[in-house]
Amino acid sequence: MYPKNKGKVTRPALLTEVVRKMVSLKGGADPFVCVAEELALVEHSLNRAIRSQECTLTEIASHLINGGGKRIRPMVTLLAFKVFGGKRIEDAVDIATAIELIHTATLLHDDIIDGAETRRGKESAYKKYGLKNTLVAGDFLFIKGFEFAGKFDEIVVQWTADACAHLTEGEILQGHFSRNADVAVEDYLKIVERKTASLFQTGARVGTYLAGAGPSVVEEMAQYGLNFGIAFQIIDDILDVVGHRELLGKPTGIDLRDGNPSIPIILALKEGHPAVWEAFQYPFAAEEKIQEAIRVIGQSSAIEKARSLSQSYAERALQSAKRLPPSRYQKGLENLVQLIVEREF
Amino acid sequence: MYPKNKGKVTRPALLTEVVRKMVSLKGGADPFVCVAEELALVEHSLNRAIRSQECTLTEIASHLINGGGKRIRPMVTLLAFKVFGGKRIEDAVDIATAIELIHTATLLHDDIIDGAETRRGKESAYKKYGLKNTLVAGDFLFIKGFEFAGKFDEIVVQWTADACAHLTEGEILQGHFSRNADVAVEDYLKIVERKTASLFQTGARVGTYLAGAGPSVVEEMAQYGLNFGIAFQIIDDILDVVGHRELLGKPTGIDLRDGNPSIPIILALKEGHPAVWEAFQYPFAAEEKIQEAIRVIGQSSAIEKARSLSQSYAERALQSAKRLPPSRYQKGLENLVQLIVEREF
Repeated sequence: MYPKNKGKVTRPALLTEVVRKMVSLKGGADPFVCVAEELALVEHSLNRAIRSQECTLTEIASHLINGGGKRIRPMVTLLAFKVFGGKRIEDAVDIATAIELIHTATLLHDDIIDGAETRRGKESAYKKYGLKNTLVAGDFLFIKGFEFAGKFDEIVVQWTADACAHLTEGEILQGHFSRNADVAVEDYLKIVERKTASLFQTGARVGTYLAGAGPSVVEEMAQYGLNFGIAFQIIDDILDVVGHRELLGKPTGIDLRDGNPSIPIILALKEGHPAVWEAFQYPFAAEEKIQEAIRVIGQSSAIEKARSLSQSYAERALQSAKRLPPSRYQKGLENLVQLIVEREF
Repeated sequence: MYPKNKGKVTRPALLTEVVRKMVSLKGGADPFVCVAEELALVEHSLNRAIRSQECTLTEIASHLINGGGKRIRPMVTLLAFKVFGGKRIEDAVDIATAIELIHTATLLHDDIIDGAETRRGKESAYKKYGLKNTLVAGDFLFIKGFEFAGKFDEIVVQWTADACAHLTEGEILQGHFSRNADVAVEDYLKIVERKTASLFQTGARVGTYLAGAGPSVVEEMAQYGLNFGIAFQIIDDILDVVGHRELLGKPTGIDLRDGNPSIPIILALKEGHPAVWEAFQYPFAAEEKIQEAIRVIGQSSAIEKARSLSQSYAERALQSAKRLPPSRYQKGLENLVQLIVEREF
């Protein structure tokens, strides 16, 4: 069922290389290397999952699945499984596959919602294949994700379904605060918990559960996933302001153009910069207005405050990781937090 | 968990009344009455399922869930369960709920794809709530559907996931033949098997399986569902040409306007009517061209041929029903075929 040659993990290896240039890892345990074999199995499993009689579906799914995702969700899931000595690796691969499929489904639908032109440095599926095909391909990936999760017992299905319901709730909640300058940091955290962190949380929770750990440990790891996911999203938001287009694979300022209440925007709004207020509030703002607002946010203390907020969630995730039984996987979970908050893409 | 007062099934009862005016039932077993209590449980279960912290999701889901669906898929599922003496009624209710939720999810996404203005006589969710909210609400219903199906063992999850994957494949296949006058009856049957019949098939299959029937019986009932579903869709297509707007709750001629290859259109194209060819092939045809084409199809032998095709699939479903152990549920499954092919909405 799985490929014999497990050694070849081109993309994650490449990613590690880039990340290594930025971050010097404490303790030497590279989370990518820790679970490289398992990640290769997930890659294989993802590509099997998206095979369909209708080649259009496979093509669109492959466009995104093989389009340079960082596979951070599968990685958290696999590390959570391995750190508790999980043995039936096919279980961890199945749930990691489910979670990445569901994540990819939401990306396809998000691109429709945002009218996104690019994704991961390439033309978005929405731009390339149109609304109809992209919508149906997103449904297809949701279904395939559930097929993988549905192999497990009722509690795993329930956790996965809850995470997915949270994704949709987060999307709706974000819509309520679209171009709404009254949005508070608390609103943002509610959105991010649902829209981003819930899948990390579920990956960590299910990985731990499938390894056979007890309920309190499962919940500790769920906390790791939740806090990790929030820290991760805050960095994503920061990079949308101060990141490099080439490293990100997309232009900066997307949140401002789309009217999405990202944390740097919210914090800059609180500081009372009229340029930000104007660019965020009004759709179809002129490009120079957007650029000016991005410059203002980048030079305000919003970025520093956002980094500090990300760091506080990263610290909580680290505290959870430090309480784990020592192993290279435990070190991997610690280092993954560091990689994520210090990343530049 | 379920309501004490099981007697009140307003809408299906109303439907029965209307249908009774049209069709004199053989053997007296009214399929709606046979499973009225169970259908009431499904109603309750559907309305519980769509509760969300985000009231927008609940509102959109409710708009369609409580918008006058005929609940034919739950009915087939429940009858298949009851005819084999299924005891744990909550199992049948759960899978019937799952199937209706998934069906409703596809309706929400279909309305986006077709840009539909009306659905079941009301403003469509897409028109009322916009693309973004409708898309996310569709995802939400898919997820909830899977949550219900995911309670069962692996084979049930697999059957449900396969049916859903078929739905998406059918949608893509239909897209290939959109406004394509080369479409053949065989292409149509492939589309309908996937896009409509697969959920009926899965409902019948899982209902029978959950009642504890053996594999050959489960497959016999799956055949009932498949043939029933094809007969059902052909009638839907016919009504889009010769139906009454008031009974249908939507205008006629939608397939022609949307360029969907319905069976009357395909058969009329084969007869070589230039007006049909023109209206089907070109988007944005003038309304008088559409009306002329509908009149031509209605007066051609396409309708009679389509009825005869529907009848041939209905006959196959009837043959399966006749081989079932005799009971009022068995009669109900027979009569449901008759109701479906003779219906006017």
